Amino acid sequence: MSENPARTARLGQNQYGKAETRVVRITRDGDRHHIKDLNVSVALSGDMDDVHHSGSNANVLPTDTTKNTVYAFAKEHGISSPEEFGLLLARHFVTSQEPIRRARIRIEEYSWERIGGPGTQHSFARTGGGTRVAQVVHDGEGTEVVAGLKDLTVLNSTDSEFWGYRKDRYTTLPEAHDRILATDVSTRWRYSWADAEGETAPDWDASYRETRRHLLDAFAQTYSFSLQQTLYGMGSRVIENRPEIDEIRLSLPNKHHFLVDLSPFGLENDNEVYFAADRPYGLIEATVLRDGAEARIPAELTNL
Amino acid sequence: MSENPARTARLGQNQYGKAETRVVRITRDGDRHHIKDLNVSVALSGDMDDVHHSGSNANVLPTDTTKNTVYAFAKEHGISSPEEFGLLLARHFVTSQEPIRRARIRIEEYSWERIGGPGTQHSFARTGGGTRVAQVVHDGEGTEVVAGLKDLTVLNSTDSEFWGYRKDRYTTLPEAHDRILATDVSTRWRYSWADAEGETAPDWDASYRETRRHLLDAFAQTYSFSLQQTLYGMGSRVIENRPEIDEIRLSLPNKHHFLVDLSPFGLENDNEVYFAADRPYGLIEATVLRDGAEARIPAELTNL
Amino acid sequence: MSENPARTARLGQNQYGKAETRVVRITRDGDRHHIKDLNVSVALSGDMDDVHHSGSNANVLPTDTTKNTVYAFAKEHGISSPEEFGLLLARHFVTSQEPIRRARIRIEEYSWERIGGPGTQHSFARTGGGTRVAQVVHDGEGTEVVAGLKDLTVLNSTDSEFWGYRKDRYTTLPEAHDRILATDVSTRWRYSWADAEGETAPDWDASYRETRRHLLDAFAQTYSFSLQQTLYGMGSRVIENRPEIDEIRLSLPNKHHFLVDLSPFGLENDNEVYFAADRPYGLIEATVLRDGAEARIPAELTNL
Amino acid sequence: MSENPARTARLGQNQYGKAETRVVRITRDGDRHHIKDLNVSVALSGDMDDVHHSGSNANVLPTDTTKNTVYAFAKEHGISSPEEFGLLLARHFVTSQEPIRRARIRIEEYSWERIGGPGTQHSFARTGGGTRVAQVVHDGEGTEVVAGLKDLTVLNSTDSEFWGYRKDRYTTLPEAHDRILATDVSTRWRYSWADAEGETAPDWDASYRETRRHLLDAFAQTYSFSLQQTLYGMGSRVIENRPEIDEIRLSLPNKHHFLVDLSPFGLENDNEVYFAADRPYGLIEATVLRDGAEARIPAELTNL
Repeated sequence: MSENPARTARLGQNQYGKAETRVVRITRDGDRHHIKDLNVSVALSGDMDDVHHSGSNANVLPTDTTKNTVYAFAKEHGISSPEEFGLLLARHFVTSQEPIRRARIRIEEYSWERIGGPGTQHSFARTGGGTRVAQVVHDGEGTEVVAGLKDLTVLNSTDSEFWGYRKDRYTTLPEAHDRILATDVSTRWRYSWADAEGETAPDWDASYRETRRHLLDAFAQTYSFSLQQTLYGMGSRVIENRPEIDEIRLSLPNKHHFLVDLSPFGLENDNEVYFAADRPYGLIEATVLRDGAEARIPAELTNL
Repeated sequence: MSENPARTARLGQNQYGKAETRVVRITRDGDRHHIKDLNVSVALSGDMDDVHHSGSNANVLPTDTTKNTVYAFAKEHGISSPEEFGLLLARHFVTSQEPIRRARIRIEEYSWERIGGPGTQHSFARTGGGTRVAQVVHDGEGTEVVAGLKDLTVLNSTDSEFWGYRKDRYTTLPEAHDRILATDVSTRWRYSWADAEGETAPDWDASYRETRRHLLDAFAQTYSFSLQQTLYGMGSRVIENRPEIDEIRLSLPNKHHFLVDLSPFGLENDNEVYFAADRPYGLIEATVLRDGAEARIPAELTNL
Repeated sequence: MSENPARTARLGQNQYGKAETRVVRITRDGDRHHIKDLNVSVALSGDMDDVHHSGSNANVLPTDTTKNTVYAFAKEHGISSPEEFGLLLARHFVTSQEPIRRARIRIEEYSWERIGGPGTQHSFARTGGGTRVAQVVHDGEGTEVVAGLKDLTVLNSTDSEFWGYRKDRYTTLPEAHDRILATDVSTRWRYSWADAEGETAPDWDASYRETRRHLLDAFAQTYSFSLQQTLYGMGSRVIENRPEIDEIRLSLPNKHHFLVDLSPFGLENDNEVYFAADRPYGLIEATVLRDGAEARIPAELTNL
Repeated sequence: MSENPARTARLGQNQYGKAETRVVRITRDGDRHHIKDLNVSVALSGDMDDVHHSGSNANVLPTDTTKNTVYAFAKEHGISSPEEFGLLLARHFVTSQEPIRRARIRIEEYSWERIGGPGTQHSFARTGGGTRVAQVVHDGEGTEVVAGLKDLTVLNSTDSEFWGYRKDRYTTLPEAHDRILATDVSTRWRYSWADAEGETAPDWDASYRETRRHLLDAFAQTYSFSLQQTLYGMGSRVIENRPEIDEIRLSLPNKHHFLVDLSPFGLENDNEVYFAADRPYGLIEATVLRDGAEARIPAELTNL
């Protein structure tokens, strides 16, 4: 990007912003309260050579300001979905600050359910079942929305085999014809929507909900001969059922559950008792694309 | 305990065992599978002076054996509840090994729910909403069962105040008449049941389920002037409603949600936008006892 | 403690305060800077029945105030050592607030070393090698100082055996005559000093430094037949060499390093290649006391 | 990559392997032992369409085998450096298995220092000061070596300013003319060496050691007007001093240390007492390149 003739070094891709701004937004519907709980990270790029070379901050909007903007926007615009909130923020930074040419907003959303019995209107417990994530990139010309989820732990207690693999000098693994298959789903999918004129945005919440359901269904319903096959089954199910999605990447650790050898104790282990191992673990990663679509989700994104 | 006349040092309380044995037990009800997922830690005490003084392992059952026993018992006895499984293990070690006089079994249970739509019989997703824990101590004469839960995050978006407190030279906190109250519940309760002759054991699963519900209800339904009051409301609700429980200890971090000052941006913040802070946090801890009951849950246990 | 006749529940041991206040104190010696970096947790007890029963905060000094006090004291008194800083705080709360009868201050200290070459005066890198901790309890009558360290990972690559242990139906472990012995040291020691008239306080920094050295030396120099023996060797070395210390508790996970079976690949493994396992791990815990001293360090403290 | 005409979905970039194999290698130099402690992750790519589409494992070398290979290679070849060990593994997988076209080996190395006083030959304590990392990619035609470090926490207690920045409606930050600058360095640098004929490989250990020193020196010696400037100073120092390195990427969180307002207590805070905040934090990321070199380190790599 920049050149600094007096030196052999030059600046490449760079970005800056405030990471992990934790914003909770309460909305009152009479006595009935609603909660949105986000972790927002802003990364801005643009005409930033000077600040790197000389420390001149003339083009730098402070990261503290990006944090303030998150809070102010939560008040001014509310939070309808992480994707929509990310779009508002991304456009704002690029539109309002001339030196900023590109904004990337990453959001984690933590979900809550109501507690306390009938009639309780403002009490919540945080739920599990994975964390919803979204990433919006806007550069003044186009917009890209990637959504996803992570830390969703799933397990099939049967209908998984693993055999017929290559063997070399270092192969000792016995073939398995009935094993546990368990993983922590980390996935990101990219919407085709690019904010072009006349284009209607997806219903972000409905799309998230349905995509999550397809992923769970495909995991549960695939009779698996390899985690790769299950992964592809999950990814292709989404592509085939959600026309608004052009690309999906999944990172699936193979959380090994080893059958414990109980024979020294005179006991048979008929796929009943397992040791759940921590490390090492298999790690299966792939992108599934709609035919004709371009691959644009970085390989590392599902490892974050 | 021991004396070693040649030295000024002597051995005090000691224990050893295998910590964090991860056991998953699958049970088949025809095609329909059930899963139990535990993390089991064993701590044994007894006649252990020699191993400390000379390294003689003559009285030491290896920690590897305690791990094997967990797996073998999962097969031989199944896992009906963490309390019941802990009882079986604790009695076994004390009964079968003369030098071992006391066994403490700690268990975490991770819960799963079915996924994949109607008819799926062997597919599960791990749930959130806190982790169930149990501790069983058996010393040959008596038995003590402590159950509990941790990492259950709850929040009231109103009906919480904090004012009328002491002020000194270092007090700057403004009084609050409507604030968010949020915490991660960590609690342990002790059953009166001690395995005496003729005594019937509680229904561990029902007791856990109902105690958890009382805790959530009391949290949600208490109009709070301090987190101490909420804590006591939660603890006393359990003591008053669950006769099988004699003592409960709670450790409740005050997860601060600070109202963001939006006035520099010309915006009012009518209890809508909050910053969820990490550290520091308030920490409120107390034991609530049944009248006449003895306090026996260690103060640190709810910090683990 | 309290009785509440209308109810079956009563309040037991309780405490409250601000946990994990992160304070960094810079001291300038001309251009040369010094840094102290602490994590301070305050827990106060006393006449606190009302706040639990009714929510009246009349006896409650806000946790926010305890946080402010930490910062103000860092300015007013500086930070010479975590023990000394804890003493100042503990005495302050008990002395200045009538309802507060007991204060417990827990501190972690993170250490830094100078970087940047000769002459750099204000640049630091955080070091590893474990975290120093201290706990001061003051109740108006007496004072107790416990110091310690945690997360100090050590390993002997030989001079460790494990054999001659008890065997039962579930024992499969082969005896080991040359194994790796590795652990994360977590330990707390108690000083005899109780702030009585005429008593001189230990040199906290020197005592910490020397105790740490004795622990490392004893770990390294003990030819070990069990981790219990090594533990006792470490604890007794401290008791025998540091007259100011009356009691020490250690919690030592046995971080298993399993010799990998390379024979399927036609390779011999002459104690060269190991798998470092995560879970499960052995956990060996014990207190070592000076003859005649009372055991007062809670068993759970070294698990925090 | 693949096309599957019956479907709208197709497979994109994919890789698989065993992650986080923990290998410890002891070498004996007479009684004097040496230790190498690595965490090795293997990711293989190639002709893997079938396993995704049908679950046929005919082209799949099991991840268990990649784990075994790590252990066997530790015995057969020893571990001279993470880079060299990664090279051996990467070449092996591509060379020995026809369907595998590309291997990426990622390694973390944990460092140890000797303890126990003069003459102790086999006792070690794990050190801090960051974790060394390396990544080797080999695809049969070329080789790319990226090295780096992470979790190295550094702090300047003065010589840092921040002012002259852009201000908008949401800017409230006061300018700072003397602040603490602290960060956790995460960095990766790419060597120009590509294993071409006649090319001599760098001395990996010396290069790592010197690059680390340059990074620390540049951090300490830069009078900073922005963290961007410090980052560029660190990156360009490496490019200018280490001819074997063509590209370096840094990810530097701005670990905020806020000056505590002590004025309510009648105290002045002359840059003495700071609150070390957790979240949110600034995050400054950039690549620095040798003039003419291509940018090839993925932006996300320094976030892992």
